[in-house]
Order: sequence, then C-alpha cells, then structure tokens
Amino acid sequence: MPQYKAPVRDMQFLVHEVFNAEQQYQGLGYSDVNRDLIDAILGEGAKFTENELAPLRVPGDEHGAHWDNGVVTTPPGFKEAFQAFRDNGWATIAIDPRWGGQGLPHSLNIIFHEMCFTANIAWGAIVTLTHGAIRAIEAHASEELKEQYLPKLGSAEWTGTMCLTEPHAGSDVGLVKTKAEPQADGSYAITGTKIFITQGENDYADNIIHLVLARLPGAPKGPKGISLFLVPKFLPDAGNNPGARNAVTCASIEKKMGLKASPTCVLNFDGAKGWLVGQPNAGLACMFTMMNAARLDVGIEGLAAAELAFQGALAYAKDRLQMRAPTGPVTPDKDADPIIVHPDVRRMLMTQKALAEGCRALAYHIALQLDVESHGDDAARKAASDRVALLTPINKAFLTDRGLECANLGVQVFGGHGYIREHGMEQIIRDVRIALLYEGTNGIQANDLVGRKLIANQGRLLRSFLDEIDGLCAAGSSDPQVSAWLQTLSGCSKEWWQLSQELIARGRDDTNAVYAAAVDFQDYSGYVTLAYFWALMAKRAAEQLAAGEGDAAFYTAKLKTARFYFERLLPRTRGLVDTIRAGAESVMDMTADEFFL
Amino acid sequence: MPQYKAPVRDMQFLVHEVFNAEQQYQGLGYSDVNRDLIDAILGEGAKFTENELAPLRVPGDEHGAHWDNGVVTTPPGFKEAFQAFRDNGWATIAIDPRWGGQGLPHSLNIIFHEMCFTANIAWGAIVTLTHGAIRAIEAHASEELKEQYLPKLGSAEWTGTMCLTEPHAGSDVGLVKTKAEPQADGSYAITGTKIFITQGENDYADNIIHLVLARLPGAPKGPKGISLFLVPKFLPDAGNNPGARNAVTCASIEKKMGLKASPTCVLNFDGAKGWLVGQPNAGLACMFTMMNAARLDVGIEGLAAAELAFQGALAYAKDRLQMRAPTGPVTPDKDADPIIVHPDVRRMLMTQKALAEGCRALAYHIALQLDVESHGDDAARKAASDRVALLTPINKAFLTDRGLECANLGVQVFGGHGYIREHGMEQIIRDVRIALLYEGTNGIQANDLVGRKLIANQGRLLRSFLDEIDGLCAAGSSDPQVSAWLQTLSGCSKEWWQLSQELIARGRDDTNAVYAAAVDFQDYSGYVTLAYFWALMAKRAAEQLAAGEGDAAFYTAKLKTARFYFERLLPRTRGLVDTIRAGAESVMDMTADEFFL
Repeated sequence: MPQYKAPVRDMQFLVHEVFNAEQQYQGLGYSDVNRDLIDAILGEGAKFTENELAPLRVPGDEHGAHWDNGVVTTPPGFKEAFQAFRDNGWATIAIDPRWGGQGLPHSLNIIFHEMCFTANIAWGAIVTLTHGAIRAIEAHASEELKEQYLPKLGSAEWTGTMCLTEPHAGSDVGLVKTKAEPQADGSYAITGTKIFITQGENDYADNIIHLVLARLPGAPKGPKGISLFLVPKFLPDAGNNPGARNAVTCASIEKKMGLKASPTCVLNFDGAKGWLVGQPNAGLACMFTMMNAARLDVGIEGLAAAELAFQGALAYAKDRLQMRAPTGPVTPDKDADPIIVHPDVRRMLMTQKALAEGCRALAYHIALQLDVESHGDDAARKAASDRVALLTPINKAFLTDRGLECANLGVQVFGGHGYIREHGMEQIIRDVRIALLYEGTNGIQANDLVGRKLIANQGRLLRSFLDEIDGLCAAGSSDPQVSAWLQTLSGCSKEWWQLSQELIARGRDDTNAVYAAAVDFQDYSGYVTLAYFWALMAKRAAEQLAAGEGDAAFYTAKLKTARFYFERLLPRTRGLVDTIRAGAESVMDMTADEFFL
Repeated sequence: MPQYKAPVRDMQFLVHEVFNAEQQYQGLGYSDVNRDLIDAILGEGAKFTENELAPLRVPGDEHGAHWDNGVVTTPPGFKEAFQAFRDNGWATIAIDPRWGGQGLPHSLNIIFHEMCFTANIAWGAIVTLTHGAIRAIEAHASEELKEQYLPKLGSAEWTGTMCLTEPHAGSDVGLVKTKAEPQADGSYAITGTKIFITQGENDYADNIIHLVLARLPGAPKGPKGISLFLVPKFLPDAGNNPGARNAVTCASIEKKMGLKASPTCVLNFDGAKGWLVGQPNAGLACMFTMMNAARLDVGIEGLAAAELAFQGALAYAKDRLQMRAPTGPVTPDKDADPIIVHPDVRRMLMTQKALAEGCRALAYHIALQLDVESHGDDAARKAASDRVALLTPINKAFLTDRGLECANLGVQVFGGHGYIREHGMEQIIRDVRIALLYEGTNGIQANDLVGRKLIANQGRLLRSFLDEIDGLCAAGSSDPQVSAWLQTLSGCSKEWWQLSQELIARGRDDTNAVYAAAVDFQDYSGYVTLAYFWALMAKRAAEQLAAGEGDAAFYTAKLKTARFYFERLLPRTRGLVDTIRAGAESVMDMTADEFFL
C-alpha cells in the first residue's frame, strides 16, 4: 500500500528555485511571507497529511459514507481529521483576516491542498468545496451575508457546497429548473432537486451552507436566467448559531465508482429559505468567479493521483523480486531481481515521475498567477488573468488525464496484485476517475480552450504565453543538453502557434472542425506546456548543479527526468499534429442510425 | 445502462465476407459447417447472451461472489445461467466428439466467447478456464486421465482451473515452490499455496479439476523444474462421480477492483492427491499449449469492453439532451440537442466503433488461424502457427489496452452519470482492468513480442505477415478512397519492417534498448495491424457496395469508420516511431535512490 510522503523537496524547488515565490509574495504585499514561513507550512502540511489523512484513505474507501434517513455519516476518523484540520489552523491559511483568517497567499493553500488530495482525495473534497463557497460569497454577497457566514465558513466551523447540477442539467447548466420565489422578508423560497452535491450532507460541521443556482419568476430561459442563492441547512439564530432546520434534505447518496468516503448527495429543496447572492440572473457569472480556482484544484487531484501512484509503484518495484534483468542478474544472491531493473517497469516509473513533476510545475505556476490576479497592480492583474484563463482548461484536463494514466501505470507495475483492493492502488484509479468529469468534463474544457480561450481572442492569450516561452528559448543555457531541449521547445512554440492559426482560420467556415479537433489540441497544448516547464526546471537545475551549492543528486535526477520527458513523452505530440489537422468529416459523416447496424 | 445487443451483422461480415470462413472450414474437413449453421450459432448465441447473461452483469457486480468457511457462492442467477449454458449445448460446441462434443471449429466457440464476455465478463471467466483445462489435458494427459476427465469437463458437468501463481511467483512462474511428492500408487501428493485462481472454488459444478504447477523432488531450479498435475476437488469414485473430498481448500477469495462476480481464490493444497500431466519438469511447456488460446480469449475480453462501452455510450448520446450543436439547433423543438451532435462526443463514439470493429477483425483472424494450426496440413499448420505466435501478444495487449481506453470513453460520454454505479458504465472499466494484467501483463506480452517473436527469429514471422499486407496493397482497389488507404498501409509496412530491423540490430549490443522500446513497439504493431484489417474490411465493403447486393448502409458505415481509423487513429503511430528509436538511456539512467529525493 502506498505510504504517502509529501514531495517537499520538489515543492521547495518549484516555490523557491524555479518560481521565486518569496519575491512575488513580497511584491504583492505579503511582507511576512518568507522562505522560512513557507518551509514551515510545507513541513507541517506534510506531517498533517501524512499522519492524519493518509492512513484513512484505504479504510475510508472500504467503509464508505453512509446515508440513513437523511443523515450522512462519513467513515471512522474522517470527522476527527476534519476537527484536527480546524484545530491546527489549516482552514484559515488563506482566509482574509477580516473573517478571522491568516491572510496568507492562496497559492500556499493550494500546495497544502495538493498534499491533502494525495494523502486522501475523498477527505480533501471538503476543503475545496468550502473554499469555493467562501470565494463566491466574498466576491458577490452582501456585506450582511459576508459578516454572517464568512467567519463560520472561514474557520471551517461550517462547511459549504455548490449546488449546480440537476438530473436533466449537467454540462448544460442553462437547463436548471429549480425555482426561487421572492418572500416578503426579502428572502427567497427555493424549490427543486439538485444532484451530485459533494458533501451536500455531512457530519463534519454544525451547519452546511449551500450555494444554489435557481430561477427567479419570469427569468429568461437558458443561462442568462439563473441566479445564485445562499441556503443554509440550519437558519442562523440571533447569536449566529445554527437555529431552525431549513427545508433542505438529503434524499440519498450515490453509489459511485470511487471517492466513496465523500458523500455525493441528492438534495431536495422544498421551499427552503435562501438569500440572493449577487445580481438577479447573474448566477452563472458569480459561479465563474470561483471556477478557475475550483478547476485548478480538480487538476491537482489528477496530479495527486499521479504522485501517489508513482510512490506506490516505486516502493513496490524496489521490493518485488521477479525474473532477472535483461543484462544479467543484479542481485545474484536472491532468487530474482527487484523489478525496478526491468526497462519496461522503469519506463512506467519514469513516465509517472516526469508527468507528476511537470504537472506540479504547471499547477503552481497557475496558483501563483491567481495570487497576482487577486493582488497585483492593474497591468499585472490583466496579464495574470489572461494566463490563468488560457492555462486553466489545459491544466484541468491534462492533469486529470495524466493522473488517470499514471494511476493505471501504478496498477500495472503491481501486476495482478494491483487489482486487489488491499494494496490501495486500484483505488487511485477509481478515485481520480471523477476528476475527468466534474467541474466541466475534459471535453468541455477543450471546447472552452478552443472557443473562448483561443478563437474568441484570435490567439492573443496564447501569443502572450508563447512570447514567454520564446524568451526562455532565446535566453539559452550554458548546459548543452538543456540548450538542445530549448531548441526543441522553440520548434514546439512555432508549431503550436501555427496549429492555433489554422484552427482559427478553419473556425470561420467550419465550426465542427474546430470542436472535432478540440480535445487533441488540448492534449497537444498540455504536452508543449509541460515541455516549457520541464525546460524551465532543467535550466534551473543545471544552474544549481553548476553553482555546486549541494543537493547534486536532486538536480541530477531532475535533469534525467527532463531528458525522459523530451525523449519519451513529448513525441506524443507527433500524432496529435496530424489529427488536429484532420478536419471534421470523418467525425461528423456517420448518421446516428449508421453507428450500429 | 447498456443493453447488450450482439453485433451479429458485423460478425457475419467478418466471418462470411472478409475471411470466407465457410471455405476454410470445408478445407479443414468440417464438411457440415456451412453459412446457415454459422448463422444459426450466431443468432442463438446472441439470444442466449443477451437474455441470460447480460441482465446479470450489473446485479452480479453489486452482489459479488461470497466466501464462507471454504464454500463459495456466486451471485443469484449465475449458477442457473451456467446450467442453461450446459443444457443448451453451448459447452460442447468445440469439444471433440470422442468426449461427447459437437466437434465444431474452435473459432466459432471463440465468437460465442466474445458474446459471453461482452454480455457478462465475470460469468464468462468460467468458460475460458474450463476450456483451457480441457486443451491442456487433451494435449498432454494420459489416455486414462483423458477418458476419466474430458467427458465431464467437455459437458461442463465439471469445471476447470489453472493454478500457476503463488504469492512470490507471478510473472516469474519459475519461482513456484509448490511440491509434488510421488506416492506408491503412482499419484502425487501436492502441497503449497496458489493465489489468483479464477473460479478455484465455485457453486457451478459438482467437481472442479485443478491443473497445478508444482515441483518434483530434486527438480532443477527455475522454470525447467516445474511439472503439471491434475488435482480434482473430489476424487472420482468407481462410477466416475465425485467421491472423497481431496485435500484442497479455498482459504479466501480476493476483494478486487472489479470482476466481483467471479471468485478469485486462494487455494491451499495440503498433500492433495494429483496425477502428472505430460512429462516431468515439462509443466511450463504443457501450459504454453493453451497459452495462445487463453491469451486470445483475454484479448477478446478487451474487445468486449470496447463493444459494450460503445453500445452504452451510443444509446446515451442519442438520448441525452444537453446544449446545442455548434452549427445551430438540431432539435429546436426541444430544450437542447442530443449530445451525439457534438463533435467531441462523436469523436469518442467513432473511436470506440473503429477500435471495436478493427479489434474484432484481428481476433477472428487469429481464431481462424488457430483452427488451421490444429487441423491444417503441415505447411498450413506451420504458417498458421507462426502467424498465431506473432499476433498473440499484439492481440492480447492491444485489445485490452484499447478495451480500457474505450471503457473510459464510455464513462466520459456519460459525464458525471458515468461515475455512478447504477448506469453500469464504470463497471466496464473495473471489469476489464484485470485483462491488462492476467495471462501475462501487457509488458510481458511486449517482451515476448520483441524477444521470442521478433529477435529470436530475426523478423521472419513479421516478414511473412508483411508479405501478406504488401500483397493486399499491391492488389489495390478500384475505390479511390480505399486505394489511398492501401498506399498509407504500404508505407506502414515498410516502416514497421525498418523499425524491427533497427531493434534487432540494436539488440546485439544494447538489450535494454530493446526492452525499453518493447511496449511502444507493441503499440505501434497493434495500430498497423489494425490498419491492415481496416484496409481489408474497407476493400471488401467497397466491393460489396459496388456490386449493389444491398445492405448499402452497413457498407457505407464500414467505409466511414475505416476513414476515421486512417485519419484519426493510425496517426498515433507517429510519436511511437520516435520513442521506439529513443534508446534506453533516459529509461535506465536514474539510480533507484534518485527516483524519490
């Protein structure tokens, strides 16, 4: 069973050496956030997640969450871990001091989220959801609602949900039917059924604050007629403690492939009392406020799966003795060699390692850009916002696709034992599979990428990112190996731009061709984006190695992994170039009837 | 939930129109096997599997197999379905008339297996295993053992198992420790623990016949010291009915990711009475007798997953309304369009369809070659044996890899609903995942392909297959589209040969480079092999269409699917060409310690 060990050294390399986060934090006004503080958070976060969360992962899956007459119970230990999370101050890291928080950069919280997801993704769901609710309230609710709810949510005394989906309205939120009827006291009566509500009912907290999409009377059809409402499970009393029970009930929880310790609820709103958040009919825009952060978190769930599967597979590959190395016995005193000597096992481990570390760099880059988007000056905000907009769909889809790939590799390294539940490897596949679906399926991400993020601005966002990539390439490296990778990257940059221009041109008269190419374009973009971050990391590692500051093994390993990425993973783009250009005909020509004859 | 419908028309197209099986059967002496008989088997097989097996698939997963004090119970209905399988004569299709069978070609049985696996893979496990035991006994056991056991196994009155794996001996069967001690009566006392024994204990049959790998006293270490033994659960009495209980017990069954209705047993042999099958120390060779057929069956489990996921996704895509087509509303009278209008959904469906149909062609080709290998004249046998040897690892790995891919696409088409168990889509992922692991992991298949099937014969087997491919290309087609695909295929043939020659050359001084490239070479081989079968099918479809014999929609759909394969799937080989050539360094350079720092 994988024993999670937070990859603190790799995190430090990114935060301190590659992205120089300390300097960014200081520039954004976080004057207290220095390297020591960051390292302390990483170290304590590692302890908390390794010791409190990781041991609950496999038993939590085995036990699952349970529903009984509207009451939901999470597996043994989950509630206590949430209490520890609260007691140790993890809830308040990035909460505004106005609501009792520590006011640290959100990016540090995201790194902590990565640890939570890797240790125990089902437990981690609660932190993402509550955090999302906080952001939506902070950005759009009235001062009164903020003062009433944010201190409670910020401290994790209460938890939050997002109630979007209905049985007939999934990817198409515009089909939402839940009704909101204005009441004399300024509140609204919410009526309807929401499904797939993560932690919609739980035993973690005294109260649950639902953010619910619903329609006001006479609202326009479609997405422009949806408003956002805050609906508490218990109505706060005069002392702002949970008072009367509101008319929202959990009708059932879903039986799922994985994430079994995290209840996924059907919620019935039966004239429940709620309050409008933001402007009428602007509910979707309010939801979009927190979309980028939520999608980053989901991408990180993919990274977490890759990391955990890698750690589990690595330990097994060092331990399991089967057959001899192709070049002759490595441990002749034993009956067989550890399977890590086999080239194909190493190929799998290197794939996991290169993807996990590359994906981590991309995710942290976005996390740091989110900080700039919130706290930078106007020009910096605009640039960061563009970057986040471009990279969010790529990050969400690519990290979860690769997370699933790496989870499968983890099982493959274990052989038949990987299929047995007690080893905890197949669970990684089952748990991460949802990440390709929720917060917008990866196909929806691709449509967002080619539609809103590429064609709608004629490639401006991409050009700006490519300029940064080209800058790195132009700066070169004194290390000949890194230099060669930068040349490869420079070619990718030109090719990516060329492909994007072709898609934009094609989109003028053949919309289907754009959307038929979308997922492959997204995949291509992911591999080239990772090549950029691998080049960046390799260049830095080579510099550190040349400077002889110590930790040579770490930098050497980083360069070896970069090489694997460029030689063995980046070539996956070759076929994608062809299929992106293949047009829509072969995709669209089949009639619905012809599919099965 | 997918409602399985056997793709009888597609099966007929392959059997009758592409491979002209009737003619082959006649040539092999099956004078009674004509088109009508084949169609009757397909039609009745469809009914049996659609009606008896498919409805048990989801409930069987939910219920699972249960163990209680050594007794194993399969889910409700499974035993009755097995009885129906027996009563309706499905067990005896390909059994030698000498043992009470119908003596039909094994390839027809394999097509029936495909239907069983697609309808209910967990139930289907029993037919594969019993069939494998029959083949091993038929080929290697004494006449006495044959006469005693084959009629009972052939009629499925008794079932069979393969007992290879031990806790420390998985891919490396040479590490087997189970002991066999000769007894005065000519039998052997078998002692040891076997794991991962599919249907090692079940409630289907009165008796279970285990084929067990074990070591004789003083046997050489490693694979050359392993012998094969027949060990019945109950010792047959004088009337050849189950008599005294033998000393083999089921200690537990595994909790697995999927295939939950099929018990995977830990078996303890505690001086159990057994009989030698084949020569002493030749146990592995005996096992290899049935390996090709078993690996073909496992490959077909992958095909089955692809087919079932496709059928489920297609039905959902026609039914589920979400958003509008990019080119404008298709069903303006409804709130949204069915999702089959979306290019990315169609991309997923076309991928599933093209892979399932292409994989089916490959599998049937091998099945027919297995018949020739058993019943042809000497030259034909040799050629068929070479072909089966080359294509078996490709088929096993490629079909299961693609089966998992298509199962994932099936869930993706369902969106969040795909993650919910009641829809029966996520189960396809969980069930098929084992097929990438058992009967030799897909990495082991790749090592077999590049080692024994390529380098050991200096590419002779491949050359023979490429000659056939080149023959098809040279013959050309009067259809310009097919003609273009044949040109593409011709290029692939040259490239495949070139890559194989490079690998063979490299293997002379860099073994690791060969094994580091093995899985990518296998994947490449799979895509080019499917391109051959797609070209073959497309050429035939174009001919039938030109002949105007009717069924134009079927042939048109076939050509459209072929186009998708050549334009959107075959390009996946582009990156593989690069990675096959990338050498071993980036895979082997990392020290074991450097993997995690």
